[in-house]
Amino acid sequence: MNILDQEFQQFHHSSTANKIELFNRDNHLFDLILSQQLDRKVLDHIYHLTCAMRKISKSKKGHLFLQNRLPHKRAILYFAQPSSRTFLSFESACHLLGIKTSDIRDLSLSSEVKGESSDDTIRTFSSYAHLIVMRHPVGNMAERSAWLLNTHSNRPVPILNGGSGHDQHPTQAMLDIYTLQRSFSSLEGLDGKTIIMCGDLKRGRTVRSLTYLMKNYNNISLIFVAPPQFQMGEDLLEYLNLHQIQYSIESESLKNVLPQADAIYMTRVQDEHDQQKGESAQIDLSNFKLSVDDLPLIKEHGVILHPFPRRDEIDVEVDRDPRAKYWRQERNGMWTRAALIAHIFGVDGEILNYFEEQSDSPTD
Amino acid sequence: MNILDQEFQQFHHSSTANKIELFNRDNHLFDLILSQQLDRKVLDHIYHLTCAMRKISKSKKGHLFLQNRLPHKRAILYFAQPSSRTFLSFESACHLLGIKTSDIRDLSLSSEVKGESSDDTIRTFSSYAHLIVMRHPVGNMAERSAWLLNTHSNRPVPILNGGSGHDQHPTQAMLDIYTLQRSFSSLEGLDGKTIIMCGDLKRGRTVRSLTYLMKNYNNISLIFVAPPQFQMGEDLLEYLNLHQIQYSIESESLKNVLPQADAIYMTRVQDEHDQQKGESAQIDLSNFKLSVDDLPLIKEHGVILHPFPRRDEIDVEVDRDPRAKYWRQERNGMWTRAALIAHIFGVDGEILNYFEEQSDSPTD
Amino acid sequence: MNILDQEFQQFHHSSTANKIELFNRDNHLFDLILSQQLDRKVLDHIYHLTCAMRKISKSKKGHLFLQNRLPHKRAILYFAQPSSRTFLSFESACHLLGIKTSDIRDLSLSSEVKGESSDDTIRTFSSYAHLIVMRHPVGNMAERSAWLLNTHSNRPVPILNGGSGHDQHPTQAMLDIYTLQRSFSSLEGLDGKTIIMCGDLKRGRTVRSLTYLMKNYNNISLIFVAPPQFQMGEDLLEYLNLHQIQYSIESESLKNVLPQADAIYMTRVQDEHDQQKGESAQIDLSNFKLSVDDLPLIKEHGVILHPFPRRDEIDVEVDRDPRAKYWRQERNGMWTRAALIAHIFGVDGEILNYFEEQSDSPTD
Repeated sequence: MNILDQEFQQFHHSSTANKIELFNRDNHLFDLILSQQLDRKVLDHIYHLTCAMRKISKSKKGHLFLQNRLPHKRAILYFAQPSSRTFLSFESACHLLGIKTSDIRDLSLSSEVKGESSDDTIRTFSSYAHLIVMRHPVGNMAERSAWLLNTHSNRPVPILNGGSGHDQHPTQAMLDIYTLQRSFSSLEGLDGKTIIMCGDLKRGRTVRSLTYLMKNYNNISLIFVAPPQFQMGEDLLEYLNLHQIQYSIESESLKNVLPQADAIYMTRVQDEHDQQKGESAQIDLSNFKLSVDDLPLIKEHGVILHPFPRRDEIDVEVDRDPRAKYWRQERNGMWTRAALIAHIFGVDGEILNYFEEQSDSPTD
Repeated sequence: MNILDQEFQQFHHSSTANKIELFNRDNHLFDLILSQQLDRKVLDHIYHLTCAMRKISKSKKGHLFLQNRLPHKRAILYFAQPSSRTFLSFESACHLLGIKTSDIRDLSLSSEVKGESSDDTIRTFSSYAHLIVMRHPVGNMAERSAWLLNTHSNRPVPILNGGSGHDQHPTQAMLDIYTLQRSFSSLEGLDGKTIIMCGDLKRGRTVRSLTYLMKNYNNISLIFVAPPQFQMGEDLLEYLNLHQIQYSIESESLKNVLPQADAIYMTRVQDEHDQQKGESAQIDLSNFKLSVDDLPLIKEHGVILHPFPRRDEIDVEVDRDPRAKYWRQERNGMWTRAALIAHIFGVDGEILNYFEEQSDSPTD
Repeated sequence: MNILDQEFQQFHHSSTANKIELFNRDNHLFDLILSQQLDRKVLDHIYHLTCAMRKISKSKKGHLFLQNRLPHKRAILYFAQPSSRTFLSFESACHLLGIKTSDIRDLSLSSEVKGESSDDTIRTFSSYAHLIVMRHPVGNMAERSAWLLNTHSNRPVPILNGGSGHDQHPTQAMLDIYTLQRSFSSLEGLDGKTIIMCGDLKRGRTVRSLTYLMKNYNNISLIFVAPPQFQMGEDLLEYLNLHQIQYSIESESLKNVLPQADAIYMTRVQDEHDQQKGESAQIDLSNFKLSVDDLPLIKEHGVILHPFPRRDEIDVEVDRDPRAKYWRQERNGMWTRAALIAHIFGVDGEILNYFEEQSDSPTD
């Protein structure tokens, strides 16, 4: 343990509020490391900003307006874990705003093979770019990186957590919230809705992050659908109790609860986290899948979501049903990440102004 | 077999005309998957467009004009097989038109390792980009991808086939045709010429694709030069008979026929397709190579081509001969691909207009 | 040996002056392959240009001015050896000037796996781009590539050596000189200074390159600090004798000489070059590291440098000392490489003009 290790341990074991204070600046996101940084205010802001950017981009002129926001910025995409979806959506989000990108995706090509510490690697990235997006298999690596730059560098740059260890994937939670809000835009939004989460709830970081964010909405009701071995962890159930968020447990079959749900959030088995390889394959998941035969059970305004990648949790025939929103959800990932980056760099105001001017304009 | 597999099988076994109908729109390429989509009209159009773009790019101003055609577009280069040439030429072609690019080149870094289907992977790419360029070792993967997006997605984006399995590599055929036409521009073009194809004709997808396109030209004569084990397949010979295209077979030595040719198209052994590894190495190819000693046998206006990579089919000393056009041919790959993309996105008209205006302009 | 091998051997064994003649054009760098190309004039020019570019980039407007210098150019970054620092700094340097980049970093994805010669690979890259930046494990590969394009291609493009074999890494030497000059800008620059080089001097290409450049400065004094097994090679000591550059050898402990130095240049063990793996680990390096306890021994205006990556040669606690300049040195790598590229493409004049106009301007 060098001195940085010791200092970081102290920070890491401090309160969430203390961490948020470091990662936010002036009531504004600087880094995005933890889902807990996403309160109702910032989520609503990202929602409106995303909607504005999508509409602006409908014309070539609007596209070029967006690209002219941050053409003088460079981002490094540091993806130390396999990813194409998160990688591509972040890179596209950067390009939408004119940001130039570089990537480090294959660790065998990087200086870590020469014995460099991960602290030095991150400081190196910060030397060349204005933004770092990172995914890392080691838990807390994004947190440590942001802590390091904020406390030990003269030139901190924002870090966006694109997935860190088992637990945190805040931009996924952000895009899921956006998709839910947008899906229910004619039904007064997410407040008051009933959401099924189905699959590997124990180890899935997307459902865990999303559950944390539910405290920002009123009268949410959650139904956790999974075999006992994959049920939602005790820590999150305690969290829900603490925040008086209603939930129920369904361990037998997805069918039993489908008619109650406004949204059905399906997830895959996270067998890469098996303790002994192969234990997941022993568990019978046949009652925890969605097929075309189940569609009549779902409410007319119901929405079906999935963070992807999928295996066989949702039959491909379901894709044709208008309530299947997962492809839009995926695309929303790019737009919400672009909005997040615009917010981080403080160009959100000028984007919203432009949007309002364009909307007011009688011609064009 | 899921339902998509069944539906695709039906499409795949339908007529070429039926496929072209899906991949083209309003008499215009939408995807480019099959060499058979390239008729004389589109080949001539790509030829003129390519010539115009090359000339426009001679000035910085012209370069910027081209880059301002498609700055609001993003492309994903999905290369699931080793490639530097096709990859770099497509990426450069995108950059020439201002298109932003992302790439997925190492499958171990993608979501397919988490059990995602290739259909879902392609739909994911289509969520973030306006164009997908793909190379894949599995035959028909480009065809299936284009079929999938055109029939099952609300937001199909064009797919360009950068090499698929053994058979199809349509943009290579397109650039070869361009190079031949241009090489013979003072000799009334490709019509009426005699072309040697030499090397591994049996398994080389470039010579196969090029042969298909010969039906678009008048009075072509082909000479297939290869040892019997590597001779052109029966299927293509039947195709030539059907379209009354003249050809002959030379199985002994390249020297025997060199004096007859206007163009000599050399290719390497495709030993990656050996059934048992190593069988190709048993075959004597010494009479199927081009060395400086052979140059006097070649017509004065003759051209020597090679799709690359080369091994020892053409001695490096030949490179200095003015009839060696393979380095230009390689560079033509970038330009013709840029023209193709401009055509796909419908900015060909404005490029040709600009070119004519510049040519008419007395100053500048 | 083909004919190119023979011709290159002749060139390779010719004088350095002869090589410089090929790599320079009209008293101006065309390629940068050898540190010996960097004379005082070009080093001073790069220094001033770098300073100007850094200042211009302080505003968005200035950034866009720089990006508008070379938006019509494309570069290929060919990194056949692990690198994140040199890669990212070169790519960022290109982006600063508006150059579009493509990269080939994983050789298993390239055409070399299909048996292509490295000569053909380089000529291919030159077909698509206006600039090639390369790092290669094989010694002389950059030299051969530049030689090949300059003598055998109709369309040579500049090649920048980003590290070649054991010996040459000229842009590292260039950025080190810049950092030294800048660190001593209020002390009349590098002339007359005493510099410690510490670590694996025998095999470190950065210290070797930097030592070569010392002949451009007056009254430099070098102190080589390393255990006998890692001491500076005889060839370089002879070079120093020849050019009458003062040096001394310290084989016992860094502490002994720290008080004498204006600059301390630390380096890591290059154990990837161990003959039998593991021999470096046998050597006691405990007296050749820098810790916080050593800081009081260093002059007040002294500077501590490191080319990175570091292991434990410099304790992370040293980072907080204002004399630790290695993070700035790293960032200087991007800026000096951007200046080099601007110089190579001849846009240095317009950049310096713009800088002077801005400085003169009473407003803005």
